[in-house]
Amino acid sequence: MQEALALAARARYRCHPNPQVGCVIVRDGQVVGRGYHQRRGGPHAEVHALREAGDRARGATVYVTLEPCSHHGLTPPCADALIAAGVARVVAAMADPDPRVAGQGLARLRAAGIQVEVGLLEAEARALNRPWLHWIARRRPYVLLKAGLSLDGKIAAASGESRWITGEAARTHAHQVRDQVEAILVGIGTVLQDNPALTARPPAPGPLALGWDLPAPVRHSPALTWATDLGPWEPRHPLRVILDSLGRTPLTAAALPALVAVTPVAPRERVAALEAAGAEVLVLPADRNGVVSLPPLLEELGRRGIVSLLVEGGGQVHWSFLAEGMADGALFYLSPRLLGGRSAPGAVAGPGFRRLAEAPRLRQPVVEPVGEDLMVVGDLEYPAAAPGAEAEGA
Amino acid sequence: MQEALALAARARYRCHPNPQVGCVIVRDGQVVGRGYHQRRGGPHAEVHALREAGDRARGATVYVTLEPCSHHGLTPPCADALIAAGVARVVAAMADPDPRVAGQGLARLRAAGIQVEVGLLEAEARALNRPWLHWIARRRPYVLLKAGLSLDGKIAAASGESRWITGEAARTHAHQVRDQVEAILVGIGTVLQDNPALTARPPAPGPLALGWDLPAPVRHSPALTWATDLGPWEPRHPLRVILDSLGRTPLTAAALPALVAVTPVAPRERVAALEAAGAEVLVLPADRNGVVSLPPLLEELGRRGIVSLLVEGGGQVHWSFLAEGMADGALFYLSPRLLGGRSAPGAVAGPGFRRLAEAPRLRQPVVEPVGEDLMVVGDLEYPAAAPGAEAEGA
Repeated sequence: MQEALALAARARYRCHPNPQVGCVIVRDGQVVGRGYHQRRGGPHAEVHALREAGDRARGATVYVTLEPCSHHGLTPPCADALIAAGVARVVAAMADPDPRVAGQGLARLRAAGIQVEVGLLEAEARALNRPWLHWIARRRPYVLLKAGLSLDGKIAAASGESRWITGEAARTHAHQVRDQVEAILVGIGTVLQDNPALTARPPAPGPLALGWDLPAPVRHSPALTWATDLGPWEPRHPLRVILDSLGRTPLTAAALPALVAVTPVAPRERVAALEAAGAEVLVLPADRNGVVSLPPLLEELGRRGIVSLLVEGGGQVHWSFLAEGMADGALFYLSPRLLGGRSAPGAVAGPGFRRLAEAPRLRQPVVEPVGEDLMVVGDLEYPAAAPGAEAEGA
Repeated sequence: MQEALALAARARYRCHPNPQVGCVIVRDGQVVGRGYHQRRGGPHAEVHALREAGDRARGATVYVTLEPCSHHGLTPPCADALIAAGVARVVAAMADPDPRVAGQGLARLRAAGIQVEVGLLEAEARALNRPWLHWIARRRPYVLLKAGLSLDGKIAAASGESRWITGEAARTHAHQVRDQVEAILVGIGTVLQDNPALTARPPAPGPLALGWDLPAPVRHSPALTWATDLGPWEPRHPLRVILDSLGRTPLTAAALPALVAVTPVAPRERVAALEAAGAEVLVLPADRNGVVSLPPLLEELGRRGIVSLLVEGGGQVHWSFLAEGMADGALFYLSPRLLGGRSAPGAVAGPGFRRLAEAPRLRQPVVEPVGEDLMVVGDLEYPAAAPGAEAEGA
């Protein structure tokens, strides 16, 4: 199953909005077939593995990281293919929460007399598809806040200088993460201050970015060096999203073309100018602070099949996501510097949570050195009482 | 030598202002004597070890973590004792930088025909005596900044609530650190806000606090559980120091009695009242910002034999030490929370360093989980150009 997970990870999320799936077929203690789901519309993992196994699939055991599908989507049901191949036993890491499957794949296999087991390395299988599981359950992308900051929480020096707080290794890593998400979001403040291009420019593929708690053999699988069967490697350019309530994005912004989310207050001529400059402008309701309301934005992104969203600040934007309970994880690169400064910009700004008990926290964060910096990454967990409402009024 | 280091560490810095020293005597592959310097005025490590070895010291090899002394201090020279015992070989981890020794101990041994080697595990021996080596070279205490902060650099929520940002394990660890320093310093802001007692209240002795880069067998040596030959364990109460330019410390402050450092501007009646309340008031020159100048304070503490000083904030005090280049190390307990808040108090306040290149950084910090929090600790390294001067004017 570990090998199936490593195979699945080869997709590097490029199969989204489909899940990453890997499959290994074993007969008489020998691996006779391997496969993974490479991209949406392409064959599923099981089909790849069955093709390789051919006749040897008869009577074999199939290890698959997700319940085989039971429905006709872009490809025919895998459960049927497994039955037709005459496999004896299917071991799935987890059931498929997609409502179109949801146990029916396993049921179909069982009905055909195949021995079925579920739950082997389930936690790992969940980490493998962290963003997809979030999206399938809530129809909103998994939102990961990203920041490079000093050990004392500053994303820039008192003068505003922010390039570069973190070292080269951390910046490369951040580009590898960008390469593995569907969209990147920044606030208008960051656009005006730093004018980032928001492109993914990693020199090489990195470890599986959103599966930080996967075992090292999966996360750093040799298979993650780009597979030649996928053609020459090139970074994927995620959709760029600018949170810009008033439509102030400069027409020459390096991040354009992008999706620019504005409120109805944004001047109509600005909207037209941005559209002429290649932006898609999305007019969304304002929240009670007058800025773009996040839930409708995330729902729209979800509808477009954006499974993962990297939020690259600044501090005000990070605060908005946290205050609304809309940030699902955080990825911080901590530089060992101490910058200080009461008014130097911090990684999370806004009014802040009034009480300690209201603050979200990383659940069992993974901590790893990245060059001279320290990467801290994990899922966010919010206190039981909704923190956003009171905190925002502060 | 590793055993000698672990023995030395048993002193837990209680021998200050003497160095921690351990000694192991080996004859025919057998350890025949062990010793360490327990407290100032007590016998040195070599004397303890020679006593245990007795006649078996003749022809033996002596492993000692510091060059044996050559001068009459509170005890007679150890070099002479080793010569008298007839040892054949002395292996010292490092030479003694104390100007009263400085190679003379080794020279005396060599002159007596003893084979002498220096430098075995020297880096570890230096880590063992990090604060003392600093003090002996500069006659100022080693200054360690300590803070418990959120992952985004806040030492309190927006409401000012700060108890407790870090978990119980980190707080216990911090008490174990307090137990191993000679003095603790806070600013008047912290006294007024939190009224800390600044006592060391660890439930048990901890790992060697200021030797964070020592190998685990030394730092967590079983010998560090309290040795019965030292009597029942009790925490050491370090000197409490309050940085209080105007003498505003309340007469009922939990930190009293303490050394209160004021400037000449502090009202005379406040000084008298504080003295009546049990404080020792030290009137020191003001720096150009009107607050107590740090170099004279540190020199005075150095004169009193204060080898290590723990600075427990707040943010303004941390900034002062960093801006003056007077902080030698930092010990941060990072909570996995995100607190946010543009004006929530940060771990390092003041104007902040204007440029990234001016900021000090931790050199090869040690990162360890402590309960649910993350400890990051290391020596501070300042950029070549003195940062304090320009930064402070910002």
